[in-house]
Amino acid sequence: MNYRLLSRMLGIICSLFAIAMLFSLPWAHPSLGYRNDPNIPFPQAIEWRGMLGLLGGCLISAAVGGLLVWLGRGGTSQKLFRKEAMATVGLSWVLATILGGLPFLLSGTKSAPGVPVSIADALFESQSGFSTTGATILTNLEDPSLVPHCILFWRSSTHFLGGLGIVVLLVAILGQGASGKAMMRAEITGPTKDSAFSRMQQTAIVFATIYIALNIVLAIVYWLCGMSVFDALCHAFSTMATGGFSTYNSSLGHFDSAWIDYITVLFMILAGTNFGLLLLVATGRWRRMVNDIEWRFYIGIIAAVTIAVMVFGLWSENFSGISSALRYSLFQVVSVMTTTGYGTHDYDLWNNFGRGVLLLLMFVGGCAGSTGGGMKVIRHVLLAKILRLELELAYRPRVVRPLMLGDQTLNDINLRKQILVYFGLVAAVFACSWLVLITTEPDRQWEQTIADLGQGNLLDHKLLDCASAIAATLHNVGPGLGVVGPTANYAGFAPWSKLLFVFLMMLGRLEMFSILVLFVPAFWRRI
Amino acid sequence: MNYRLLSRMLGIICSLFAIAMLFSLPWAHPSLGYRNDPNIPFPQAIEWRGMLGLLGGCLISAAVGGLLVWLGRGGTSQKLFRKEAMATVGLSWVLATILGGLPFLLSGTKSAPGVPVSIADALFESQSGFSTTGATILTNLEDPSLVPHCILFWRSSTHFLGGLGIVVLLVAILGQGASGKAMMRAEITGPTKDSAFSRMQQTAIVFATIYIALNIVLAIVYWLCGMSVFDALCHAFSTMATGGFSTYNSSLGHFDSAWIDYITVLFMILAGTNFGLLLLVATGRWRRMVNDIEWRFYIGIIAAVTIAVMVFGLWSENFSGISSALRYSLFQVVSVMTTTGYGTHDYDLWNNFGRGVLLLLMFVGGCAGSTGGGMKVIRHVLLAKILRLELELAYRPRVVRPLMLGDQTLNDINLRKQILVYFGLVAAVFACSWLVLITTEPDRQWEQTIADLGQGNLLDHKLLDCASAIAATLHNVGPGLGVVGPTANYAGFAPWSKLLFVFLMMLGRLEMFSILVLFVPAFWRRI
Repeated sequence: MNYRLLSRMLGIICSLFAIAMLFSLPWAHPSLGYRNDPNIPFPQAIEWRGMLGLLGGCLISAAVGGLLVWLGRGGTSQKLFRKEAMATVGLSWVLATILGGLPFLLSGTKSAPGVPVSIADALFESQSGFSTTGATILTNLEDPSLVPHCILFWRSSTHFLGGLGIVVLLVAILGQGASGKAMMRAEITGPTKDSAFSRMQQTAIVFATIYIALNIVLAIVYWLCGMSVFDALCHAFSTMATGGFSTYNSSLGHFDSAWIDYITVLFMILAGTNFGLLLLVATGRWRRMVNDIEWRFYIGIIAAVTIAVMVFGLWSENFSGISSALRYSLFQVVSVMTTTGYGTHDYDLWNNFGRGVLLLLMFVGGCAGSTGGGMKVIRHVLLAKILRLELELAYRPRVVRPLMLGDQTLNDINLRKQILVYFGLVAAVFACSWLVLITTEPDRQWEQTIADLGQGNLLDHKLLDCASAIAATLHNVGPGLGVVGPTANYAGFAPWSKLLFVFLMMLGRLEMFSILVLFVPAFWRRI
Repeated sequence: MNYRLLSRMLGIICSLFAIAMLFSLPWAHPSLGYRNDPNIPFPQAIEWRGMLGLLGGCLISAAVGGLLVWLGRGGTSQKLFRKEAMATVGLSWVLATILGGLPFLLSGTKSAPGVPVSIADALFESQSGFSTTGATILTNLEDPSLVPHCILFWRSSTHFLGGLGIVVLLVAILGQGASGKAMMRAEITGPTKDSAFSRMQQTAIVFATIYIALNIVLAIVYWLCGMSVFDALCHAFSTMATGGFSTYNSSLGHFDSAWIDYITVLFMILAGTNFGLLLLVATGRWRRMVNDIEWRFYIGIIAAVTIAVMVFGLWSENFSGISSALRYSLFQVVSVMTTTGYGTHDYDLWNNFGRGVLLLLMFVGGCAGSTGGGMKVIRHVLLAKILRLELELAYRPRVVRPLMLGDQTLNDINLRKQILVYFGLVAAVFACSWLVLITTEPDRQWEQTIADLGQGNLLDHKLLDCASAIAATLHNVGPGLGVVGPTANYAGFAPWSKLLFVFLMMLGRLEMFSILVLFVPAFWRRI
């Protein structure tokens, strides 16, 4: 491990955070997109504290960044090896969590009336932003005396930064996560073969440009649909990063506009698409996207599940009519599948088919090379193909067949193993963290629900609710079922459970390996 | 595929079933172990119908067997190739399900007062017996006017036959399932290296001898503990096959004897142990068992989970004292881990830690080469080792390290892939069948529970209950959570759901491949 290089890299990233925090400062001014509700007086004192929090976070980030660069001075090798790249990606997410949480802490943001955010809360909210999960511990976003406006903007911009980080650091530098080189090759119809840009840096710049351009376009569209500049930017950040933070308690449902819903669906689908394909489309090669196997499955799953949810939902009267059924089921399906996590309809009140299928969709996620989380569609497609080949091997042990994707042969000998290992890792992490969560999390949230609703035996919901919370954080979705349903939030969990979620969000976002290796002592050896 | 050979093999197996059914006939006589309750008049007419059912089943089995042998006459090759072996194992389980269900149908056994068993019920009960699952659709076993005594004995003897089939067909012929050759090699401290019997047939005979001997010993011990001959035999069959059928509604809890509980725990542990190890112990080599890595993990998991369940159970007052806590938690943990499924305490009323950890234990199961179901301890041990090696590969892609088990090196290049494939298959089967079950199963069982208990929102339990039912049948455990909890049964499910469970029990018992290949058209080609 080249510690000097690592230190310099991390120092530069910290400095970027310091700069990014400054962009949230202007939103403390009442003229800039403040909610035009004359009934709510503008709480200038609160906003001053918010600005103080941002400035404090900015200064600390800059100081840490400067220190890290100073520590890493000298040293000649500039080459980023695999280990250094992984450590940079993993540790920059850890640093982001801590530094990004400072503004929440320092500004005295309150998660509920009279309850300032704790350290675990701040880390949770910050990691939820950077990992583009969109789970929150803030129970009331609309009361300006609880959450300063500039902090709300910082919260949404963590999504923007997280999405940018995924596109640049992961997709371009590590090649779609650590399991990744092979994945990159797996996206055969993707960028690597056709792209005129062969070098990583150029790829990173192109991807970042697409990402930022889509953010700007979407913000303008939202603004044209009647959102304020503030809301338009925040929701554009959230949509394109497949995050899910909103500036309203009822999420995107606040606007109650079919136009906004369908536009958001379109952009969520784009955000969950391989950026390499978006690049091809931008250069006029539409057909390549339509012929891409992963993208076909991605769209196919969305279409099939939406129709099934519509039919079953109409059957059990979850929706009032066909048009509203289409609108709400399409939105919720796309929102969960792309791991965005916006809500316009409380799917926790749907029939059990709807709830169950959304829980499974969390494990699917978006396409590889997108800002979407989850396990990625391509892994599921390849798993199905691998299992089919193995079935033949069971009775014809000497047959050798290549793994095919469309008309392309995937020759990488390690690819099969890596796909299978990823499923094994997710299963192991899921089972272990579920066991930890149900063991250590106190029962009070479920007992409270009993008292509130006058219903018995709700304690039995803990197992399912906790499983959905693990799935929703590990796959960076946000909302789950029950106490973490689309109308609820994560405020009720114990501090240690929140830290577990922080860990899971990081694991899921960086596709396991970049975080897990940080715990291997041998990884840190100099040679 | 050599159809003649296959037909002959299946014909012989059918004839064996015909013979096996005859052994249940004597138990229709009141003198042979009939429950000595003078208040219940002996329903001779019912028993005549039971005998009729058994004789009918016997004749049909003999006829089918004869037909198959006749169809398979001629043909010179006697060699059992891999394909023929797999087809024999898979189809014999299918035949067993159908033929074994005949006595239930023909005898007019009633699943509840006035409700004769349906075809789906009979298939379910039969498959549950042969797969040593122990899930039942009979709501009242103790009323002799509903279930004839000789049929009750047939039901328990399906466990015996299923266990014998696993030990002989799977462990000896296919080498522990289809994924199996490698697994057999994985059991390095197991029989293959030390065994003086190098040929499969001899191994099969030795394993069958151990199995039958243990059944006899346990039956005598139960009889000495005060059970009737009938109960002693039925429960011995059930314990040694890790089945779970009892002759009482309250399962083994009926006897309420600490002696019987602890003896059953001991024999359940033996039944879940690799039969190769039991052979070594029988020949005086105790130390080989204690040094076996899989067995150590097997015992270690049982001990650790029992202690955890005890501590948390005492904490949340699930048990009345330390001695009863030890007795009940040890019994339930061993019963679920070995996939037996006996109950002496309603674990569904335990705290959520206890319920959750038992649900996870279902996925672990017994040791490879035993009658226990589940995914087998060795697969979990190897998965953990594989994931640890892969973690290193993430940052050191060129390192080559062997997979070690104890001080032995596992050199089989395919072993890693096969372990991972098995986990992938289980995950895929689990997710798909869960989705099918929650979609097609009507809500009435959960609505009924609401009406019965006066509690709201129990419909939300459907997702978890169905998941536990899938796990309990796929891993051949029997009881799950909620509507399929230890005090409940599977009678309430729709016929198509019962058939799904039949399929899952078969899949789990034959470790997936032998059943799945039956659906591959290419498998059936002549060459």
